[in-house]
Amino acid sequence: MASHSSTLLSSPTFAPFSSHRLHHSPNLSTLRFSNPIRSNKPNLALRCSVSIEKEVPETERPFTFLRDSDDSSQSSSSSSSVRARFENMIRSAQDSVCEAIEAIEGGPKFKEDVWSRPGGGGGISRVLQDGNVFEKAGVNVSVVYGVMPPEAYRAAKGSASDQKPGPVPFFAAGVSSVLHPKNPFAPTLHFNYRYFETDAPKDVPGAPRQWWFGGGTDFTPAYIFEEDVKHFHSIQKQACDKFDPSFYPRFKKWCDDYFYIQHRDERRGLGGIFFDDLNDYDQEMLLSFSTECANSVVPAYIPIVEKRKDMEFTEQHKAWQQLRRGRYVEFNLVYDRGTTFGLKTGGRIESILVSLPLSARWEYDHKPEEGTEEWKLLDACINPKEWI
Amino acid sequence: MASHSSTLLSSPTFAPFSSHRLHHSPNLSTLRFSNPIRSNKPNLALRCSVSIEKEVPETERPFTFLRDSDDSSQSSSSSSSVRARFENMIRSAQDSVCEAIEAIEGGPKFKEDVWSRPGGGGGISRVLQDGNVFEKAGVNVSVVYGVMPPEAYRAAKGSASDQKPGPVPFFAAGVSSVLHPKNPFAPTLHFNYRYFETDAPKDVPGAPRQWWFGGGTDFTPAYIFEEDVKHFHSIQKQACDKFDPSFYPRFKKWCDDYFYIQHRDERRGLGGIFFDDLNDYDQEMLLSFSTECANSVVPAYIPIVEKRKDMEFTEQHKAWQQLRRGRYVEFNLVYDRGTTFGLKTGGRIESILVSLPLSARWEYDHKPEEGTEEWKLLDACINPKEWI
Repeated sequence: MASHSSTLLSSPTFAPFSSHRLHHSPNLSTLRFSNPIRSNKPNLALRCSVSIEKEVPETERPFTFLRDSDDSSQSSSSSSSVRARFENMIRSAQDSVCEAIEAIEGGPKFKEDVWSRPGGGGGISRVLQDGNVFEKAGVNVSVVYGVMPPEAYRAAKGSASDQKPGPVPFFAAGVSSVLHPKNPFAPTLHFNYRYFETDAPKDVPGAPRQWWFGGGTDFTPAYIFEEDVKHFHSIQKQACDKFDPSFYPRFKKWCDDYFYIQHRDERRGLGGIFFDDLNDYDQEMLLSFSTECANSVVPAYIPIVEKRKDMEFTEQHKAWQQLRRGRYVEFNLVYDRGTTFGLKTGGRIESILVSLPLSARWEYDHKPEEGTEEWKLLDACINPKEWI
Repeated sequence: MASHSSTLLSSPTFAPFSSHRLHHSPNLSTLRFSNPIRSNKPNLALRCSVSIEKEVPETERPFTFLRDSDDSSQSSSSSSSVRARFENMIRSAQDSVCEAIEAIEGGPKFKEDVWSRPGGGGGISRVLQDGNVFEKAGVNVSVVYGVMPPEAYRAAKGSASDQKPGPVPFFAAGVSSVLHPKNPFAPTLHFNYRYFETDAPKDVPGAPRQWWFGGGTDFTPAYIFEEDVKHFHSIQKQACDKFDPSFYPRFKKWCDDYFYIQHRDERRGLGGIFFDDLNDYDQEMLLSFSTECANSVVPAYIPIVEKRKDMEFTEQHKAWQQLRRGRYVEFNLVYDRGTTFGLKTGGRIESILVSLPLSARWEYDHKPEEGTEEWKLLDACINPKEWI
């Protein structure tokens, strides 16, 4: 795996918390990401409610991105913290997905960028572009220590406390990936698993600490092969069913609702599972569940790519795939929390936008003819189905 | 010019007022755009603060989209209203730009969609796709009668009135166009001119009426030909100088500031002119100025396309153009007021997104080598220049 460094800005590549927990308050300090080479910047302040240090490139992957105080290998504690175990999990998931992609590519390798932040945290971005099988494959992990405004903390706690706590430190870690194959019969895959904690707020001793899990795995074919859709959803359901029979139906619907392109009244793809703000179960159970989900990515997806990667296709098939990739771009730039959060808070642009396909297409007023394979896919994006 | 009808939703294809005049208030009524064929819509309400009727397709262009009460040809008044003259102006601009494009195409014609709204207003969308010279050319006019919330009206008036007026009716009309040529040496052009009026608010007799003008013309080359940039900016300056010597420098800077992709710290292109909320000059003067600007589109742009459309280019030139078109998509979907306003208020999607290129490209961490033609363009997008 080749390593190279580049100008690194700043970033989580995922939203550590959902939008109702975030407020853009005019009272908060304004972060400006200045770059001496880039002058004449218009006077548009980059306002954000979460302050995150600027990162610096690293030449090697560190053993951990945790602060020393969080790193149980450095402490006398015999049991690892959830933070440490979650970091282990996402880094293993990154490794195993990248290995599976490189195996299927048969030659082309991921390019890696590593960065860290002086006060703790950092990330690893891996990208494989214009390979044999994949047009673009990005697999990122990141660990963030930041500070959230008290309003966001109060919203998270769900209580209208009279106290006015100071800024609340938070910890967030996640793995995030988008895989765009070349063959129009092989689906795009996205997955993201994240863990979030707040520390006790500054100036308010003893205030309760919050934690939650979020994430999901969803796929976006340009053409429906029912056996593929059933296989993909079955693996998601198996992972869910090991923990709670309510998970799959609930998280399948959540996924259909989340990946919704409102202005088109259609979903980005054929779903999978999605959940957020999950903290009303045992923390150990949710850590295991997230791990199970991340481990399910390879068996859910790779066999489908193996089956479809060498199928013959026409220019028309490719053009339709490109149109659907246009929809992918629309969803990510207009609605996706992680993307819009990252862009607005001065995240590392190349890591955030690695989710965009290598190429996409927009035709005016394109409508597939009723009954065609293109129409069937569109219909399933408009009217989500139960696949199993 | 071929006419065809299609499923028409709703829309202005431009923002009739700037964002500081718009508020998404939880107290406002929720508009839902339902479609009986499209079931299983998730429970995500489409909230918007401006209510606009749904439009219906028309088979013919009407003489005017104005309500009878606004149409001076129907009244005994000898002088036409600004509304009527502005509609005339934008429809003439649409005609003359489309004629110039069809002349350069030498065969391919625009496709036209006409729609109206039962209570008044409507629009004409014209698109030429995959022509000889243009990849995609869209030229739209629309006339909107809508209702804005009192908060937005108070913001527009700039006064903190104690009165609580009811919803404020407004009128908006505009022409909006994006022209994407095929040849990577021929620049993309965008222009948009719009006029806005509020009526006296309901329930508050005699409240003052507001009006303002907005718009601009800007261009986005993938490669710099200094003679083209100078020609384009000179024509903009000439149009401005006929009215006020302060206009060009002021509106040139406004353009550089507006078409700014904040997350990349670069501009979409090489600018032009842009202005908004203009009402501190004589209304007749601003109507003439807008007309002059719209009439300057053809002489500013068409000679450049004539000169560049048949130049030989390599795959590398095309790939760079496609990357810059990716930036165009990023700006339009993330920042452009007209686009984001239109998407959020249930506008006519095909009219709004006709501004997107036929195809675009995103490469991970692409950086042109210093000193190359690609680097020079990027440098000029990062550090805007005075071209004349």
